[in-house]
Amino acid sequence: MERKNLILAGAFVWAAAATGWAQSTLPQDSARQQQKAQLVRGLYTDALTHQQGYRLLESLCSEVGPRPVCSSGDARAIAWAVRKLEELPFDSVYLQEVPDNPRWVRGVETASAVGYGKKGALNVTALGGSVGTPGGNKGAGIRAELVEVQNFQELDVLAAAGKIAGRIVFFNRPLDPSYINTGSAYGNAGDQRWAGAQEAGKHGAVAVLVRSLTLRTDDFPHTGAMSYGDASVKIPAAGISTQDANWLSSELKKNPGLRVQLTLGCEMLGTCTSYNVVGEWRGTGNPEQIALVGGHLDSWDLGTGAQDDGAGCVQSIQALGLLMRSGYRPNRTHRVVLYANEEFGLNGGRAYAASALSRSEVHVLAIESDGGSGTPRGFSTENAAARERLEQFKPFLAPYGLLAYSVGGSGADISALRGQGDVVLVGLSADSQRYFDYHHSAQDRIESIHPRELELGAAALAALLYLFDTNP
Amino acid sequence: MERKNLILAGAFVWAAAATGWAQSTLPQDSARQQQKAQLVRGLYTDALTHQQGYRLLESLCSEVGPRPVCSSGDARAIAWAVRKLEELPFDSVYLQEVPDNPRWVRGVETASAVGYGKKGALNVTALGGSVGTPGGNKGAGIRAELVEVQNFQELDVLAAAGKIAGRIVFFNRPLDPSYINTGSAYGNAGDQRWAGAQEAGKHGAVAVLVRSLTLRTDDFPHTGAMSYGDASVKIPAAGISTQDANWLSSELKKNPGLRVQLTLGCEMLGTCTSYNVVGEWRGTGNPEQIALVGGHLDSWDLGTGAQDDGAGCVQSIQALGLLMRSGYRPNRTHRVVLYANEEFGLNGGRAYAASALSRSEVHVLAIESDGGSGTPRGFSTENAAARERLEQFKPFLAPYGLLAYSVGGSGADISALRGQGDVVLVGLSADSQRYFDYHHSAQDRIESIHPRELELGAAALAALLYLFDTNP
Repeated sequence: MERKNLILAGAFVWAAAATGWAQSTLPQDSARQQQKAQLVRGLYTDALTHQQGYRLLESLCSEVGPRPVCSSGDARAIAWAVRKLEELPFDSVYLQEVPDNPRWVRGVETASAVGYGKKGALNVTALGGSVGTPGGNKGAGIRAELVEVQNFQELDVLAAAGKIAGRIVFFNRPLDPSYINTGSAYGNAGDQRWAGAQEAGKHGAVAVLVRSLTLRTDDFPHTGAMSYGDASVKIPAAGISTQDANWLSSELKKNPGLRVQLTLGCEMLGTCTSYNVVGEWRGTGNPEQIALVGGHLDSWDLGTGAQDDGAGCVQSIQALGLLMRSGYRPNRTHRVVLYANEEFGLNGGRAYAASALSRSEVHVLAIESDGGSGTPRGFSTENAAARERLEQFKPFLAPYGLLAYSVGGSGADISALRGQGDVVLVGLSADSQRYFDYHHSAQDRIESIHPRELELGAAALAALLYLFDTNP
Repeated sequence: MERKNLILAGAFVWAAAATGWAQSTLPQDSARQQQKAQLVRGLYTDALTHQQGYRLLESLCSEVGPRPVCSSGDARAIAWAVRKLEELPFDSVYLQEVPDNPRWVRGVETASAVGYGKKGALNVTALGGSVGTPGGNKGAGIRAELVEVQNFQELDVLAAAGKIAGRIVFFNRPLDPSYINTGSAYGNAGDQRWAGAQEAGKHGAVAVLVRSLTLRTDDFPHTGAMSYGDASVKIPAAGISTQDANWLSSELKKNPGLRVQLTLGCEMLGTCTSYNVVGEWRGTGNPEQIALVGGHLDSWDLGTGAQDDGAGCVQSIQALGLLMRSGYRPNRTHRVVLYANEEFGLNGGRAYAASALSRSEVHVLAIESDGGSGTPRGFSTENAAARERLEQFKPFLAPYGLLAYSVGGSGADISALRGQGDVVLVGLSADSQRYFDYHHSAQDRIESIHPRELELGAAALAALLYLFDTNP
């Protein structure tokens, strides 16, 4: 028997060892607190058991697919969102006009190291907003010597030495792997993608290749928005896979005269109007006060935007669905907002905030999920006062692994509401380790989503909305 | 410019929003505290930048592969471990004899629903320790009616009604998805696998099929240890994939007379001696005091044991490697212990503890990593006093996302040290959401490992060892 017990202990001790944070941290519990804890528990049970958020995401990725603003996918996504919101008992579901979005279209995109045959083929993709190479899809493209730089300082030095004009500039500074949060690594490498073409163009470069903003070494080029700022000269810009960036860099050391042939057919075709999709659930006590949860409905075109930001959209819908099914009657009015065009200018966020201002709407809370579907770790706010307001809910949320309450920004879309009264802006903090493996690449597909991790995020949003709403 | 700034904010706000917990929580910092914080930072930078732990795991999975105790893989793993430890500046690397391990071998394993043709084929695998069906690999197997139960209470009721004798019992209680920590779901479903055959055999059943202990619905059967206890009748036991379990359950409702054909060639072939592999790094101040970090070197045979427990082994090796490369000279003696035979009886853990006792060794700390390679969340201990000792390090560890300090057990292998002096027993708490997707199945391969998540675990172990060692 001793042996049996030892073995049993061995086989299943993991269960005990790993329960970790899942202990009650509630203060001496009043009946009311117990009731609140039970409602939160019910939200998680519904989410994890029925996984309706994950099913929504499967539907979005398979039935809509990629949905850059102004694309046919964008229109399909809006119709999809209305349909899905109408399946829930919202008091109203409506569209909000979002004008002046760029209609940028991708075309041919090929690149190769000249003289290397098939081995020289490079995995590239145009950065969002880039001009094409001369003649576009049918042109001969650009062929020029490549010059590698790590940053704008090095660019300036090389330009002064006459080594930038007429060349293709290869921005190849990797994400710094020593950051614990990959978002910081991304942020600190992002200037190359955003402003690389603008800076290199000033010095007479003819195009730029930018190392993909990922910590993975693989063959998938990552896209993302870039800007020419007020530059008068616009040169083409493409992302290159990290694997190919490493290869190019190594070849360039052996062959400093290495030339690259680049053809991009992308172009800007004016603008379009898109729409925020809003579902409204009226409050019973203070309906004039609004609590919002949202993500952005647009995505890049290479994958199906499962992580960025399909996950945030379905988590937001599911969060209100969970609350509705729990039987809770909200005190304040709750809205899910699926924002148009985050990726190409934040137009949706600005249109929503402008509308709120013009209607004198009172937002008390806005939560955004746009950091992927990793296991939620907590919430991020914009200032210490907001963090303290959230931390009072920690006794209810810690059993679900929500232990991190930080000051570090909230979300891109909701940030336009900043300064409208006392609105508390909150971002869901998801585990970041895998996010940039997929982000803005063909890898951003449903296969990258773990259903339970996604649902834990949805339940976290629902729990925070509920606790905030019941708080005096 | 406003537009540019807005767009920039949009593109990279994620970085800020998601930094989350990564803020300094150090108290007013003395120079000594700053120095300690810097050493910890260095451990993480080394781990994340060079990923030597991940390389070790690639080597273990590809060069050794599956390594059940007493198998040829077990011997290869021991030789591999000695080689890898000898590449680091340990003062000594040695083997510790672990006698009397079961030499259980798998054979043919096929099952099908009779009369369903190819559609009736079932994905099954023998549970570890099971007897084979009559005649083993060359026998005709067992063909009998199937009866589904959820638990032992239902089994008893059906037995009393004469519905168990002569039948194959199908234990089909799923893991409860509402648990936040999947280890708890696993623990609460584990009795079916562990004791299902023992209980069903008492009532005259001829075999058992056990629903795989995973929250995924897929085609991979999961194995794991089972026991006949003191039962005189031993009946064969196999795990069945969750997909096939669902199908069988649904067919059984339509066709209550459904029969299953099961052939298992597994058998027990006596015992063998295996070995714990130990690397010892002598302390400079109090070398008689020992701090231990470890995992188990044996694995199941269906995959390559990347998660269970290759991850824990390489994290333990890497933890001491990180400390060695940091230039730190330990006060106490540090050991990495790669335990033999966790899966089939905890013999390695017991042999280590017995040796420590007989030599009057003084263990002050033992840390185990055996919960997979998910992002580390914190540490689990066995009592409140131990938790408090660890929580004093939180200011140094919180910037790395180590926020959960709980009382909930430590680890199977180290648990045999319990009661030897004041040893603090600690388990690394890793994010559990994906662990049972792979556990004990063919899915437990290197492809399931995320290099950064694995390395964060190794650095967490190193940081805790360091902080504990520098603490008076």
